Amino acid sequence: MIWAVVMAGGSGTRFWPLSRSERPKQLLPITGKRTMLEETVARLSPLIPAERILIVTQRSHQRQIRKILKHVPAKNILAEPCPRSTAPCLALAALHIAKRDPSAVFAALPADHLISNAPLFRHHLKVACSQAAKGRHVVFGIPPSVPHTGYGYIACRGKAGVSRGIELYDGLRFVEKPSLRKAKAFLKSGKYFWNSGMFVWEVSFFLRSMQKALPQMSRGLAAIKDSLGTTKEQQVLNRIFPSFPNISIDYGLMEKAAGLCVVKAKFEWSDVGSWQELEKITSSDRDGNAASGKTLILDSRGNVVKSGKRLIALLGVDNLIVVDSEDALLVARKDRAQDIRKLVDELGRRNMRQYL
Amino acid sequence: MIWAVVMAGGSGTRFWPLSRSERPKQLLPITGKRTMLEETVARLSPLIPAERILIVTQRSHQRQIRKILKHVPAKNILAEPCPRSTAPCLALAALHIAKRDPSAVFAALPADHLISNAPLFRHHLKVACSQAAKGRHVVFGIPPSVPHTGYGYIACRGKAGVSRGIELYDGLRFVEKPSLRKAKAFLKSGKYFWNSGMFVWEVSFFLRSMQKALPQMSRGLAAIKDSLGTTKEQQVLNRIFPSFPNISIDYGLMEKAAGLCVVKAKFEWSDVGSWQELEKITSSDRDGNAASGKTLILDSRGNVVKSGKRLIALLGVDNLIVVDSEDALLVARKDRAQDIRKLVDELGRRNMRQYL
Repeated sequence: MIWAVVMAGGSGTRFWPLSRSERPKQLLPITGKRTMLEETVARLSPLIPAERILIVTQRSHQRQIRKILKHVPAKNILAEPCPRSTAPCLALAALHIAKRDPSAVFAALPADHLISNAPLFRHHLKVACSQAAKGRHVVFGIPPSVPHTGYGYIACRGKAGVSRGIELYDGLRFVEKPSLRKAKAFLKSGKYFWNSGMFVWEVSFFLRSMQKALPQMSRGLAAIKDSLGTTKEQQVLNRIFPSFPNISIDYGLMEKAAGLCVVKAKFEWSDVGSWQELEKITSSDRDGNAASGKTLILDSRGNVVKSGKRLIALLGVDNLIVVDSEDALLVARKDRAQDIRKLVDELGRRNMRQYL
Repeated sequence: MIWAVVMAGGSGTRFWPLSRSERPKQLLPITGKRTMLEETVARLSPLIPAERILIVTQRSHQRQIRKILKHVPAKNILAEPCPRSTAPCLALAALHIAKRDPSAVFAALPADHLISNAPLFRHHLKVACSQAAKGRHVVFGIPPSVPHTGYGYIACRGKAGVSRGIELYDGLRFVEKPSLRKAKAFLKSGKYFWNSGMFVWEVSFFLRSMQKALPQMSRGLAAIKDSLGTTKEQQVLNRIFPSFPNISIDYGLMEKAAGLCVVKAKFEWSDVGSWQELEKITSSDRDGNAASGKTLILDSRGNVVKSGKRLIALLGVDNLIVVDSEDALLVARKDRAQDIRKLVDELGRRNMRQYL
């Protein structure tokens, strides 16, 4: 059976003032009317029913997510005792899946990505699952459109085949965020894809691979596995999980993985990494303003505007990000979107913690 | 006795989104904690007591002003039946004063100017009143600091004298908003002052002068005068006031006036004509940001920021006006401050009247 693990543990600051510590990006309706997490879960239906979707999140968001995702069984919403990167997160989820369905194949999906064509995405998922069922590491590779220096890349050997209309590549290795010069060469070569952070594995193969790649987690994972369904489950998790390394699945497993299958994505994808990204995914007016909510825009070009309950009026301004929230308002130069983190850090330093 | 007429009839749009049709600039705390009208009235004390201060406003603001200025007798707050410029406004107020104190001298003062040194201002007022008592038109002239093209100027013959430390000039004529070339020449000459729009007259001299300068108002003014204190007063005013020409005191009276006395202002003055003006009158940080309210400003220069209840955060932006209000937010390029009017017009056209 096909399962999904939705990774919803992030606490991003790049969408301040909308994203807050208690309301990170995946719990916000950044790209639509529903939260990104809801969109991510909805996108899987009917291929993967709610009963086979696990959500892994921070303890402080567990209750909120149970409310948002009423149709997902409460026991499927797992809470990490403390923040760790994606390797411990997926290992924990895999143990739960393996206990309930030892022959499962599962997709690991970030909760906060935008994919507009859900049927096309599910078609890719099916193809990826068939490949994973052969005992391979499968990753969705996004054909790069620009020499992006903010993404990791996957180097490939060239096309390995086509399955039900979807191109497959043999992956050679994961490459961390490149320089612009390298990114340009990657783009030109046609053999490099963006690492989408979406993976598919057989659960048994995944757990065996983790044991080899991250042997320091083996004993802890065995203990958690034994505790599942017992009265000690929570206690064991609380004790062991914090001892796991804070390591991503990319770095902990995939960079060492052999037999990597890259499924080339034909669907449109965005990790919606910053307010600036909204520009690409929101329809713009003829002056290139990507605006949502109540706005009045005069003599202004290239702005990203997100209004909440109130009207935002722009006059004669270009290339700004303007975002309104209940208690705080952001005006930033568009090309400084990555530095919103700095601003949030500053809030902490200046005793303005109520805005975090 | 010295009286004051505070002209509070304006319905400015240049301070949108704070200024609204029901809350024009003079009823807003633009420059301090109190409304500009309150500041204007307070500035007169103790020279002119509340009993001798008349406020002329629109009917729709009368009640609000009575609430704000509790110490001013209700009968002193006059309402114009319809908006007219300053000549009809001052004529109406002068009739009221003349009836109560035929030998009065009165100062005509806009309700929405900023003058920071009140004692110094009152000293000027005293000097101006002594000059007015000689049967002259007296106007406060502001020595220009820049070749401003947004103000009217008063051309003078050169210094006529000094009274109690205040320089007096013989005025030659009023000059409408000049070109930049002319404004530069005015500045250089030292014989041109900005027309502050603040005047002082003997009330009897004023009314006689109005009769000569605007004879078309004579019959109407006589009728209003006769009705004052009778049961017909309101009815007569409603009938006659709308027939008055929509003409300013500058254009209707002062441009034709002979024997003009210009009192050179030593006090700091601003008509606070736009958000941009706040820059000059608000203390700025070392990056030249004039900010008030809760703000967090990073890597940004030369901005004018006015926050309401919420935090305004700026990141990497320069020379903007950012103003927050309960239901609307403005982000404008600073040098477009004069065009905020356009924006307000557009609100009307786009069926967004709730923001007017």
